[in-house]
Amino acid sequence: MSENKRVVIIGCGAAGGTAAQFARKTDRKAEIIIFEKGSYPQYSKCGLPYTISEEIPKLENLIEFSEEWFEKSKIKLFLNTTVKKIDTKNKEIIAENKEGKIEQNYDSLIIATGAKPFLPPIKNINENNKQTGGVFTVRTIDDAKKIKSYTEEGNKATIVGAGLIGLEMADCLYKKNMDVTIVEALPEILMNTLDSDMSKIVLDNISDDVKIFTNHLASEIKTKNGDIDSVIIKNRDDDIKTVDTDILIIAAGNKPETTIAEQIGCKIGETGGIKVNNKSQTNIENIYAVGDCTEYKDFITKKPTLVGLGSIAVRQGIAAGTNSAGDKYILPDGFINTCTSEFFNIEIAAVGPNKKCLSEIPTVQGKFKGSSLPEYFPGGKPITMKIYTDINKETIIAGQAAGDKAAQRINTVACAVLNKTKLDFFRKLETAYAPPIAPTLDTVTLTADVTAMKLKRKKRKK
Amino acid sequence: MSENKRVVIIGCGAAGGTAAQFARKTDRKAEIIIFEKGSYPQYSKCGLPYTISEEIPKLENLIEFSEEWFEKSKIKLFLNTTVKKIDTKNKEIIAENKEGKIEQNYDSLIIATGAKPFLPPIKNINENNKQTGGVFTVRTIDDAKKIKSYTEEGNKATIVGAGLIGLEMADCLYKKNMDVTIVEALPEILMNTLDSDMSKIVLDNISDDVKIFTNHLASEIKTKNGDIDSVIIKNRDDDIKTVDTDILIIAAGNKPETTIAEQIGCKIGETGGIKVNNKSQTNIENIYAVGDCTEYKDFITKKPTLVGLGSIAVRQGIAAGTNSAGDKYILPDGFINTCTSEFFNIEIAAVGPNKKCLSEIPTVQGKFKGSSLPEYFPGGKPITMKIYTDINKETIIAGQAAGDKAAQRINTVACAVLNKTKLDFFRKLETAYAPPIAPTLDTVTLTADVTAMKLKRKKRKK
Repeated sequence: MSENKRVVIIGCGAAGGTAAQFARKTDRKAEIIIFEKGSYPQYSKCGLPYTISEEIPKLENLIEFSEEWFEKSKIKLFLNTTVKKIDTKNKEIIAENKEGKIEQNYDSLIIATGAKPFLPPIKNINENNKQTGGVFTVRTIDDAKKIKSYTEEGNKATIVGAGLIGLEMADCLYKKNMDVTIVEALPEILMNTLDSDMSKIVLDNISDDVKIFTNHLASEIKTKNGDIDSVIIKNRDDDIKTVDTDILIIAAGNKPETTIAEQIGCKIGETGGIKVNNKSQTNIENIYAVGDCTEYKDFITKKPTLVGLGSIAVRQGIAAGTNSAGDKYILPDGFINTCTSEFFNIEIAAVGPNKKCLSEIPTVQGKFKGSSLPEYFPGGKPITMKIYTDINKETIIAGQAAGDKAAQRINTVACAVLNKTKLDFFRKLETAYAPPIAPTLDTVTLTADVTAMKLKRKKRKK
Repeated sequence: MSENKRVVIIGCGAAGGTAAQFARKTDRKAEIIIFEKGSYPQYSKCGLPYTISEEIPKLENLIEFSEEWFEKSKIKLFLNTTVKKIDTKNKEIIAENKEGKIEQNYDSLIIATGAKPFLPPIKNINENNKQTGGVFTVRTIDDAKKIKSYTEEGNKATIVGAGLIGLEMADCLYKKNMDVTIVEALPEILMNTLDSDMSKIVLDNISDDVKIFTNHLASEIKTKNGDIDSVIIKNRDDDIKTVDTDILIIAAGNKPETTIAEQIGCKIGETGGIKVNNKSQTNIENIYAVGDCTEYKDFITKKPTLVGLGSIAVRQGIAAGTNSAGDKYILPDGFINTCTSEFFNIEIAAVGPNKKCLSEIPTVQGKFKGSSLPEYFPGGKPITMKIYTDINKETIIAGQAAGDKAAQRINTVACAVLNKTKLDFFRKLETAYAPPIAPTLDTVTLTADVTAMKLKRKKRKK
């Protein structure tokens, strides 16, 4: 038996791969082993839509760390290998691949099993126990490969789900000159990310380019020779429409993959993810979990929240990798879910809970539509921002943005959220100003000013 | 005598104009009077270089608030009017213009007299008590008008001073296809803004386009028919060079205009600016001072600092306008000097003191060169950042950036500086990630990671 620490990781996505890297950084001598059921080493799932639009020219480009990289880092990576059993008493894992069974002891175990796409109950989504031809999710390189073979110019595409991935896919297929329809069960697009007044900015910009049916469910797939031919959608009054389509993309969210974690007694939270703490530890000693299979808490509401962002997965990977190998990395007391995306030339970004999730906290929100440049400098682009403040604590707790450099502007708000910065203090933040770059007072602090005025009025009324 | 509060403002630059606006916002009924010695209402001085490159097509575009605007806001604006005397005992001002003398009582007085360009001792800079033809500073619309008449394609331009304005002017004249030479007395360009390793990124990018002589003084102007013909420059060894030139731009910094403030007994600080506090008050009751004529303190070093940024001038204007009209606006305990500019296609930004100014604080700095996008996404642009941390307090105290979205990235660091955020906390900030917008971990936090590693090493050694 080796004297070195053994860290075993299940899954080589962003979270698992990062955990391996940071275990290696922390302990040069540790034995690090990854079992990955798929056939690729760590690659970017978030990049998949852009391989379809060919902004990323090759699928292989998505691979962020190659097999050679893992080998050079002395991390043993088993691809196409499934973990069959974990014996937590004897700290032993049994995995299996084409070549046979692998028995592996561990000191620390990191579960990074990810999530699987949620498949809504659409009639004929499967045919003869196989997903119907032309129906795809967007989770793996293999998914993207198949989608690519359907993206001929002029073809019709239907997307179920108007969240970030749904809209990214819509944009990418639109760029391939396809005829795109989006079907969303909720009353609005991007409902998990933006408030309706902010998502409307996106909606106004894309409704010329794609057809959008909100408040509609996809109920049935009609096929022709085993391939999709159309999809039946219906609204809440059961009014039915038939949408002809050559391809159906399901982007209706993910379900954490927790089978093996449940088998060994890992606590599963109310959201369905493996419960982890600020070290990314599960309830079982020496067992960590990271990424899309986990549930942590929201920094503001403190409510359990499913991890769904690559940036969070990577941070958990850093934490679990570092902690499992003997050093210490403590995550903040919850996630603030800073996120961004771009579709149809609008960049959006958000941090903290949106209105829907803030119902239990007394808040005031201020919104401001500014320009990226001073008025007198030609070429300024619109940027709309919104900031939420806790009425009692007077701290900044959330923000949303749509327009120029939305992501970087939201990062500044994110820093305020993490610091529990008082609104009145934040609005005095000196932002960088130069005529060709940004106005004297940036939209980010002008939005805080509007919020401060509203807060003042609210407090006066009390 | 009126029963309403009378706020009198001397100077209608960004600081004075903003003070008037916020006095008006605070008190709908106040009498507000501005005396401005120049002939234009509030305009952007920072925009002047871009009128010369014609990125801003007309000089008049720079006017941010017109005479009509002031009239509509019931702010009495006297242009071409000089304040001759202030009687602080009787709270009376005597001003003068072509039409005669104006006597005006005040309850609050706001001094916003700005600064005048510093003219280095260059032989023949004046001829017959007039600035030699072809020699200009960049402070007023009239300066810009005159410069424009000299900017013919192929003409030669020499700029004294390689600070922000010097480089902005160099870029703008280069864009007019002029042959540009920069002469800087200090050993490096941008020495008041960036450390040498950061300014080198700019230097490497512009040295093909313009000639730069650092460590050189302009010593003498040679004229021909009253107009400049060449400038003699010399290095520290008195080696002399003759630079033929059609125009000489002096961008060697500013001196606060404090004549009238001194006459009435306002305390002048060691930097030469009028001393003001966090309400922008001078030492004399009911007398405020704002903008480039003032000295406040640095947020980090707490040392007296001359105000030189438009964004700070505006914040002081907000404070003095609000406070003088009866409400309360407290500035942070010092300025962090967040700033940015762009020249020769490189955006730079900084917050807090640079190395030169941090000599008395034990610091550790970390630097990282990243990309604006994940590696696998084509089109990523370089972004280099640097973060300074106080070794004892472990807080983030300064940052510098050069490259993609430098300004917005520095705003995030600025928020951390203002919040006195601990480095180890800041590096865990979730930044917005999406393949076409930003990498999983943004350069801003990766720079913090590098700094944290260096801090750890330093602490271990202790």
